Amino acid sequence: MKIWVIGAYGIVSTTAMVGAKNIEKGFQTRGLVSDLPVFDKLMEINKFEFGGHEIRIKKNAYDAILEHWNLNRHFDFSLIENVKDELEKIEAKTGTALNCGSGLKELGEIKTLEDEGYTLREIVDMVTSDMKEFADDETVVINIASTEPLQKYSEEYHGTLDGFERAIDENRTEHISASMIYAYSALKLGLPYANFTPSIGSNLPALKELAMKTKTPHAGNDGKTGETLVKTTLAPMFAYRNLRVLGWMGYNILGDYDGKVLSHKDNKESKVISKDSVLEKILGESPYSITEIEYFPSLVDNKTAFDFIHFEGFLGTKMKMYFIWDAIDAIVAAPLILDLARFLLFAKRKGQHGVIKELGFFFKSPMEIDVVNTHKQFEELVSWYKSLE
Amino acid sequence: MKIWVIGAYGIVSTTAMVGAKNIEKGFQTRGLVSDLPVFDKLMEINKFEFGGHEIRIKKNAYDAILEHWNLNRHFDFSLIENVKDELEKIEAKTGTALNCGSGLKELGEIKTLEDEGYTLREIVDMVTSDMKEFADDETVVINIASTEPLQKYSEEYHGTLDGFERAIDENRTEHISASMIYAYSALKLGLPYANFTPSIGSNLPALKELAMKTKTPHAGNDGKTGETLVKTTLAPMFAYRNLRVLGWMGYNILGDYDGKVLSHKDNKESKVISKDSVLEKILGESPYSITEIEYFPSLVDNKTAFDFIHFEGFLGTKMKMYFIWDAIDAIVAAPLILDLARFLLFAKRKGQHGVIKELGFFFKSPMEIDVVNTHKQFEELVSWYKSLE
Amino acid sequence: MKIWVIGAYGIVSTTAMVGAKNIEKGFQTRGLVSDLPVFDKLMEINKFEFGGHEIRIKKNAYDAILEHWNLNRHFDFSLIENVKDELEKIEAKTGTALNCGSGLKELGEIKTLEDEGYTLREIVDMVTSDMKEFADDETVVINIASTEPLQKYSEEYHGTLDGFERAIDENRTEHISASMIYAYSALKLGLPYANFTPSIGSNLPALKELAMKTKTPHAGNDGKTGETLVKTTLAPMFAYRNLRVLGWMGYNILGDYDGKVLSHKDNKESKVISKDSVLEKILGESPYSITEIEYFPSLVDNKTAFDFIHFEGFLGTKMKMYFIWDAIDAIVAAPLILDLARFLLFAKRKGQHGVIKELGFFFKSPMEIDVVNTHKQFEELVSWYKSLE
Amino acid sequence: MKIWVIGAYGIVSTTAMVGAKNIEKGFQTRGLVSDLPVFDKLMEINKFEFGGHEIRIKKNAYDAILEHWNLNRHFDFSLIENVKDELEKIEAKTGTALNCGSGLKELGEIKTLEDEGYTLREIVDMVTSDMKEFADDETVVINIASTEPLQKYSEEYHGTLDGFERAIDENRTEHISASMIYAYSALKLGLPYANFTPSIGSNLPALKELAMKTKTPHAGNDGKTGETLVKTTLAPMFAYRNLRVLGWMGYNILGDYDGKVLSHKDNKESKVISKDSVLEKILGESPYSITEIEYFPSLVDNKTAFDFIHFEGFLGTKMKMYFIWDAIDAIVAAPLILDLARFLLFAKRKGQHGVIKELGFFFKSPMEIDVVNTHKQFEELVSWYKSLE
Repeated sequence: MKIWVIGAYGIVSTTAMVGAKNIEKGFQTRGLVSDLPVFDKLMEINKFEFGGHEIRIKKNAYDAILEHWNLNRHFDFSLIENVKDELEKIEAKTGTALNCGSGLKELGEIKTLEDEGYTLREIVDMVTSDMKEFADDETVVINIASTEPLQKYSEEYHGTLDGFERAIDENRTEHISASMIYAYSALKLGLPYANFTPSIGSNLPALKELAMKTKTPHAGNDGKTGETLVKTTLAPMFAYRNLRVLGWMGYNILGDYDGKVLSHKDNKESKVISKDSVLEKILGESPYSITEIEYFPSLVDNKTAFDFIHFEGFLGTKMKMYFIWDAIDAIVAAPLILDLARFLLFAKRKGQHGVIKELGFFFKSPMEIDVVNTHKQFEELVSWYKSLE
Repeated sequence: MKIWVIGAYGIVSTTAMVGAKNIEKGFQTRGLVSDLPVFDKLMEINKFEFGGHEIRIKKNAYDAILEHWNLNRHFDFSLIENVKDELEKIEAKTGTALNCGSGLKELGEIKTLEDEGYTLREIVDMVTSDMKEFADDETVVINIASTEPLQKYSEEYHGTLDGFERAIDENRTEHISASMIYAYSALKLGLPYANFTPSIGSNLPALKELAMKTKTPHAGNDGKTGETLVKTTLAPMFAYRNLRVLGWMGYNILGDYDGKVLSHKDNKESKVISKDSVLEKILGESPYSITEIEYFPSLVDNKTAFDFIHFEGFLGTKMKMYFIWDAIDAIVAAPLILDLARFLLFAKRKGQHGVIKELGFFFKSPMEIDVVNTHKQFEELVSWYKSLE
Repeated sequence: MKIWVIGAYGIVSTTAMVGAKNIEKGFQTRGLVSDLPVFDKLMEINKFEFGGHEIRIKKNAYDAILEHWNLNRHFDFSLIENVKDELEKIEAKTGTALNCGSGLKELGEIKTLEDEGYTLREIVDMVTSDMKEFADDETVVINIASTEPLQKYSEEYHGTLDGFERAIDENRTEHISASMIYAYSALKLGLPYANFTPSIGSNLPALKELAMKTKTPHAGNDGKTGETLVKTTLAPMFAYRNLRVLGWMGYNILGDYDGKVLSHKDNKESKVISKDSVLEKILGESPYSITEIEYFPSLVDNKTAFDFIHFEGFLGTKMKMYFIWDAIDAIVAAPLILDLARFLLFAKRKGQHGVIKELGFFFKSPMEIDVVNTHKQFEELVSWYKSLE
Repeated sequence: MKIWVIGAYGIVSTTAMVGAKNIEKGFQTRGLVSDLPVFDKLMEINKFEFGGHEIRIKKNAYDAILEHWNLNRHFDFSLIENVKDELEKIEAKTGTALNCGSGLKELGEIKTLEDEGYTLREIVDMVTSDMKEFADDETVVINIASTEPLQKYSEEYHGTLDGFERAIDENRTEHISASMIYAYSALKLGLPYANFTPSIGSNLPALKELAMKTKTPHAGNDGKTGETLVKTTLAPMFAYRNLRVLGWMGYNILGDYDGKVLSHKDNKESKVISKDSVLEKILGESPYSITEIEYFPSLVDNKTAFDFIHFEGFLGTKMKMYFIWDAIDAIVAAPLILDLARFLLFAKRKGQHGVIKELGFFFKSPMEIDVVNTHKQFEELVSWYKSLE
């Protein structure tokens, strides 16, 4: 299959590429949900061709992963050398970063379509044409670019497909962000689309309408990879045992580009909010909670979470739990890119379209569904798969 | 309803009594599973009369909880004063501690039936007669006495009810432990029985046969209250995400009577083993694991667990998770005593008998079922309840 | 001896009073530095009479500690009952909260001199007269009121005693904060003064000049009680072993009045800054550091710190250390109030005056000295004491 | 200078060699105490020639470090490649493992002098002759071999040099262990000797007598690198503040050869005991304490410690502290090998002999001195150095 990645030179994307290309050569790895025996048909999808959009100026994916690897040493170097030739062939097209906030400047030297002076319509057409040229019948588009600032909702331009296309034609750049453009282009072309970021992506009435019209499956938002994964696995225990969570503190530190970008106030906002409501959904009551993300440069991509749960049990007694999650964000996230690609392709093959709610297992803020309990999400994923198989 | 408690003067039992008696007076508390809205019929069972067996020499339950409270201050003292009169009326009968190991001597001054020189048959008859005198149609028996040493399985005496009763009549004290006697008496009388300890209890072919014969529901073993509760909630996450657990360390420290008893090598053995197999059942593979319990006097009942999980993700990369569980064992365990009483009474009312596998949610080593994932156990509990309601 | 406490009804003050009054009755307690055998002369000072200023409206110290105790249950209740009569006799005088920031409103109903319409000169005179009435030759004044916002330094009014007194006479309320007024009054009266808060207190050239003039010892600032205590004990290890600290995260949560007050942006600022420079002073290099304090209501005074230290060792390898400090702030702080009172009285008896730098052991931001290593501070305290003994 | 290493192919030794050889080429690294500005003369010693004894069968130090590196990836691989030629030249001589316990078999294929059938006298002569051939005037011997089982003290053979030499001549192999032989040979030749292990080494009256006779400096025992380093830095804080440590749990897990060897009961014993007394020496009272070391294979050399400190403060209130030390043992230990070599050479140049107590800073169980507080040890090291400089 083919995967078109938005943010093709990022650490998650390029780590996924290294993995995919090694898997093609028979390398065994853990971390892929779609490799679990229960999803046996998906494992058969084991050829991955990559393309994508990017705004950082690099020669190719090999160039990009080298830089990430030197900062992180997050896996055995020989895995890069094994697939050097394949990675060198992956060259991204220049993308857009419209309304992507001040954090962008942390990415180093960049180049965007809007900087070239193109209109919104021209940008959309160029993005669409890049995807079209690459795609075949078994191609999905995945957005894994840096988090955009929260975009204000406009009923006029976001509420209907018609309004959205009018905004493009009228060059209303204040209402359209890069993630919307990519989602629009993918769905317009009938390419399944997943949004691995907290950016808005396809999460607009206008774009959901488009997905229904072109009969395309899509999914999102915001990959569930670290603290939220643990939180949504653990919090149900307190609910089952009727223990009252008095407070839940989640403090995250990270040091990579993502951390630098998040340290910009405008980019940070959407990250914090996308984590907020899961406790309420699981617990049925809303405890005091802190969810913070701070920049800590020496950790690079070794995103670390410190959680403290204060809870009340029998007879009003207060008790405590602490956890530390010391993982490499790209290592947890990268296989999910391949998982989403496989599951979305499977959905397309089975004629599914619109928001695939059952892929909520992969996301912090799953679209159109309130199930955030990791266990239930996994069960729903399995039964959805079984029902289509 | 009535509850007959084996180990009636222990901290878990007396804390449960304080809670029950306050609930009768309208006190609202958390920690009761049977108070969740989904189990609405169970909440109506809100009168609890207590009796039980005990080997420690105390005047009554008030006397006993005072001693525990002074060491632990584990809830607001006014809750004891509220129900002082009721607690003073709860006086346990002298029990048996047959084959309960060397740890017993940590309990202070004790008195047992076997010390009085009675034969096995006489002990069984006295235990049975105590229960019979107390019980009505809505009585359950719960064993929450200290952990016994592992008893060697004897096909001859444990394999059939006939053999078991022969062992009693032949006074084969080397094959019969206290927990078996209590379970036998309860089931013989048709009283639902739960084993909240890792001791053998009703977990013998002979006693399962008896439960079927007298059409009595029973459940066990070993209340899931601390580290194992968290472990069986969290471990599925690694399985769902296809992450390989390389090793799982669980190190527990505690300082109460339970800790003192466990510090005796013979009593410790069964505790360690009852924790061993859950990871394999959840993960489908068997990681290197450490599960240790050590005595730490100043913590008293504030049983604390330190867990470290080493896991492998995408591309062979190793990552880490740590958690600390800082809870009061009696506070987590006590409400489950009331829960089990309610659920077993409900089972009896609905004509259920034999091992009630769906109560596995409450146990570390659930009988006759391999489901140890806390989430699945909760779902099974709910659907069992719903199917009978 | 006599102790005049600014913030007399706070949890630290009233906990110190409970301790002092119980000590007078022969109660043995830990936590007093001045009880260490090396300071044997200080232990002889074991009668403590209390007075103070306060802005909260309470009847007396008994009333105040009851409220704190009910929220925190931070020691055995019988210790309050033992000394109820003595506590009821401690009634604070109405104080000033000039320029104490918006956090004040969290303290509940308050009453201040400035609200009565008095001028600065009148306030100063009233405060001084309250202290004078209470004091004898062996009286010290200790400020343990809530943290004030950072006050901008004014060379004209803060640079000289003359300027400072002119500011009072000219009613320049924008330049004078409550902590300065208290420090001024104490030093003017020749009463030894300690500032246990990060507020400015006596840390101004004008007030240092006054202390020299009246030959009065004083000390500050900001009691070293939690995360900073551990940090300044532990950080030297990295320096001695030539390990490079790449980053140090300190994340503190607390829920009492102090937490509520700090959750106000203006009051928070001075708290964060007073913690900033210790690492540089100890390590001789300045690592990336985070020091945050957030409000977490259910913890009340159980101020908890989460620290993460990322460090580089031999051959450039990165390693990690984590600590959690789970203490009761008032329990750690209260004995230091008695310690400071004893040490300052000792200093006065021995004719010491001006800033007593050797008391830096008790403070996060010791005045006029760069030694923040806890070990060195203790050694300096001991040798100062020995040299005067 | 020259360094003769006992256990030359172990991970600590070979990591030290990689570091030393890179330092010779101008590589800057952290972790060397002797590189601190205060010890400026020591930094001038920056050429290191290596030899040593070993029982593992490897071609040379390059071969050995490759194996360790592949399991641990504990530093940048290019540092090995930089000095490949130098490492290949380091070939160890066959050593002795007399009375080294059952853990030895975990080291893989080994070869020892005693297996060849030599008598004790012959072994001693061969060991001595190996050292003599290598050594010059500026050579030190450092023992970093695996921990031996505790050896029973024999007044007859260990109490005097004469007795010790008689034991050798009479082939009393039951009284003499490998570490004693190495220490004897070094001291006999006048070569400064350090024991980085908990084995007995030179810590016998007989060998101390020898050191005095040959005017040779020596030091030990047991490198202070992980949990004990932190413990002896932190525990003084509790003493200074008069806080009572109620209990201190230290639970260590590790997975390398050292871990495998320690998992043998006979080898483990001496490790546990060497950690036991430091708390009592620092606190002046002896809290309940747990110090355990367990094998955890996937961590390899990433020795991790979990510590819990339960302490009592003012008014009898109990509080808690936790720390996790997540370091690479070889990375913390290796630079200390070079430090000890430099400091012992410095001692020899300055005419010091016998036990150099001031090197206690480097050891868990410093010989002939009760100072275990890390801070005091550092101060004593500095003032000793300054006094000789």
